[in-house]
Amino acid sequence: MDLLPALAAAPLFHQSWDGFTILDLIAASTNALNGALLVRRPDHYKGYTDVGIILMAFVGGIGGGVSRDIVLNRIPAAFTNPWYFVVCIVAGLIGLAISYKTGQKFREGAFQVMTAFSLPWYAIVGADAALHAHLPLLAAVIVGVIGPTAGRYFIDISSGVTPKLFVQGEWFVGTAILAAVLYIVATGLGLSIWPAALLTFAVAFVFRLAALLSGWEEPEPWEPAAVAAAPRDYRLEVPIREEFDKK
Amino acid sequence: MDLLPALAAAPLFHQSWDGFTILDLIAASTNALNGALLVRRPDHYKGYTDVGIILMAFVGGIGGGVSRDIVLNRIPAAFTNPWYFVVCIVAGLIGLAISYKTGQKFREGAFQVMTAFSLPWYAIVGADAALHAHLPLLAAVIVGVIGPTAGRYFIDISSGVTPKLFVQGEWFVGTAILAAVLYIVATGLGLSIWPAALLTFAVAFVFRLAALLSGWEEPEPWEPAAVAAAPRDYRLEVPIREEFDKK
Amino acid sequence: MDLLPALAAAPLFHQSWDGFTILDLIAASTNALNGALLVRRPDHYKGYTDVGIILMAFVGGIGGGVSRDIVLNRIPAAFTNPWYFVVCIVAGLIGLAISYKTGQKFREGAFQVMTAFSLPWYAIVGADAALHAHLPLLAAVIVGVIGPTAGRYFIDISSGVTPKLFVQGEWFVGTAILAAVLYIVATGLGLSIWPAALLTFAVAFVFRLAALLSGWEEPEPWEPAAVAAAPRDYRLEVPIREEFDKK
Repeated sequence: MDLLPALAAAPLFHQSWDGFTILDLIAASTNALNGALLVRRPDHYKGYTDVGIILMAFVGGIGGGVSRDIVLNRIPAAFTNPWYFVVCIVAGLIGLAISYKTGQKFREGAFQVMTAFSLPWYAIVGADAALHAHLPLLAAVIVGVIGPTAGRYFIDISSGVTPKLFVQGEWFVGTAILAAVLYIVATGLGLSIWPAALLTFAVAFVFRLAALLSGWEEPEPWEPAAVAAAPRDYRLEVPIREEFDKK
Repeated sequence: MDLLPALAAAPLFHQSWDGFTILDLIAASTNALNGALLVRRPDHYKGYTDVGIILMAFVGGIGGGVSRDIVLNRIPAAFTNPWYFVVCIVAGLIGLAISYKTGQKFREGAFQVMTAFSLPWYAIVGADAALHAHLPLLAAVIVGVIGPTAGRYFIDISSGVTPKLFVQGEWFVGTAILAAVLYIVATGLGLSIWPAALLTFAVAFVFRLAALLSGWEEPEPWEPAAVAAAPRDYRLEVPIREEFDKK
Repeated sequence: MDLLPALAAAPLFHQSWDGFTILDLIAASTNALNGALLVRRPDHYKGYTDVGIILMAFVGGIGGGVSRDIVLNRIPAAFTNPWYFVVCIVAGLIGLAISYKTGQKFREGAFQVMTAFSLPWYAIVGADAALHAHLPLLAAVIVGVIGPTAGRYFIDISSGVTPKLFVQGEWFVGTAILAAVLYIVATGLGLSIWPAALLTFAVAFVFRLAALLSGWEEPEPWEPAAVAAAPRDYRLEVPIREEFDKK
């Protein structure tokens, strides 16, 4: 039997762990679980199968990191370190195993704190990777935004829902911009990586939580009544809560 | 006239043919024809022009291979070997030339066997490319899934249809996972490329045909009635057959 | 205070300007403004916020160039030269600042000439980049098409609208193919870069304007009545003009 030694020698268990890999993995697993629960919500659910929901955990979990790494012209971290896939599979299975109502309540409640937690980390990891690739500062901000938001973008367009990036989402993109800018400025001021990251995280996390709790929303431009009255599927999020209240 | 020698010297006719290029080309051409016929079906057709349908043949034919190669951080094979584009154009033209009803009957019938044929090959080519790039085993499975499924993903989201990967599709993604895993195990057991590929192909092809013929479907998670009753556009596939039966 | 010298030393103000960068920037800024105005139109507007509209300016402005550069396996120009982001931000802000009705009238009128202007340049820049990367001629045509069209593709799928590439759009894709082919042939005939580019631009620009003014449209394949009667959201463009006429 050559199989077992071959598998053991295979790169499943070799990977390089740079300083941010664990943060990136935490962000990936949080976003993966978020993805699996999100697509079971009525506004996203389109008859997905168990396989489809686990795939959506992959899309949510590593979509941002893969997009970030493709722009940086390198093999995505998730394809060189298999732990990304492991956490996505586990998150997908948990997302499936949780009963529907429990899952949605969890997602609307305590879990919001977890996704608020991973948003700034993803932005910091992206901005740091861009700075290490010697990209310009503005590009580092954009790369910092891609990490935490691209996974949600792909989940939304796959579900036929207007991507959250473009509509009111309690400063979802704004928080990513804030974290990326703060981290770049802190680094520019001479702080070393971890103090800069922790300071950035603290500010952006508090901002995100405040935005979620206070319902701060991005402004909308003025549009004529005919335009403003057009159907906006993101408003579907409101009836969901009503749906729960009825039961 | 400098044109003809310049064109003749241009890389249109130089390409390197590795062992799997012909398989990859067969898979691309099958998927391209499938794409052109698919988007003329009522659930996908959105007033596409002749140009649009030929473009959809490109999307279906090389979308998977291009996504695979971008993840592997290399110029996509279709952009270094022009035969990929040639087969897409030809498939698009055939898809246009076929009369509507003939095309759909062909697509639902004999052609299902052809797409079932190319699915495992695309998965094998992807898994093999990932192993050669020294990616971890789990990553090789995922790359093996991207090849046969990403083209369909882009066609579906371009047509406003829920991507087949996420809904019931007779173990579409499952077959790709099966083929990628089998090929990696067979290679790990010490089989050389072609025996491993042929063995993998035989098992996955039979599985896919059996799933298609027996209507094996991926399970769906339990959802509350309000969620389950939401419109699922993939169910549009059913009325199409009824449409044909009426005429 | 280390910040100011650190920022001044940062690569915001270093970039290499190759011959085509200015053209690429003009095309990006035109497409960015087009994107910001487009998504405020009733058929595209889905309750976008100010942040969302500026993001859409990014998608429209650099979506094509980023896709082109990813296929060419290099860090996208927009991520190495920050002026791309600067013009996108400025175009997004202008798109927001313009009053709704003025913006749409401008977009339907004089601005059509500007987008017709940038379409061939984007195609030329793409085809030239592909030739310099020693890709085959057919690949150079396809890369030439990706540049001017991919940004619109992403805007359309993000807005839930059938992408303009696939439906009637006054030879939108056709003009890109024409420009790419002309430039490759002119280069093959021995013309140096600028004469080839100017000749190509002149022909493709006139063709595009003529198509817009004369309403030349790509042919559609014959489809049964049931298929042809399916809703086609691109037809929404017609009622918009009626909407304006009423007021």
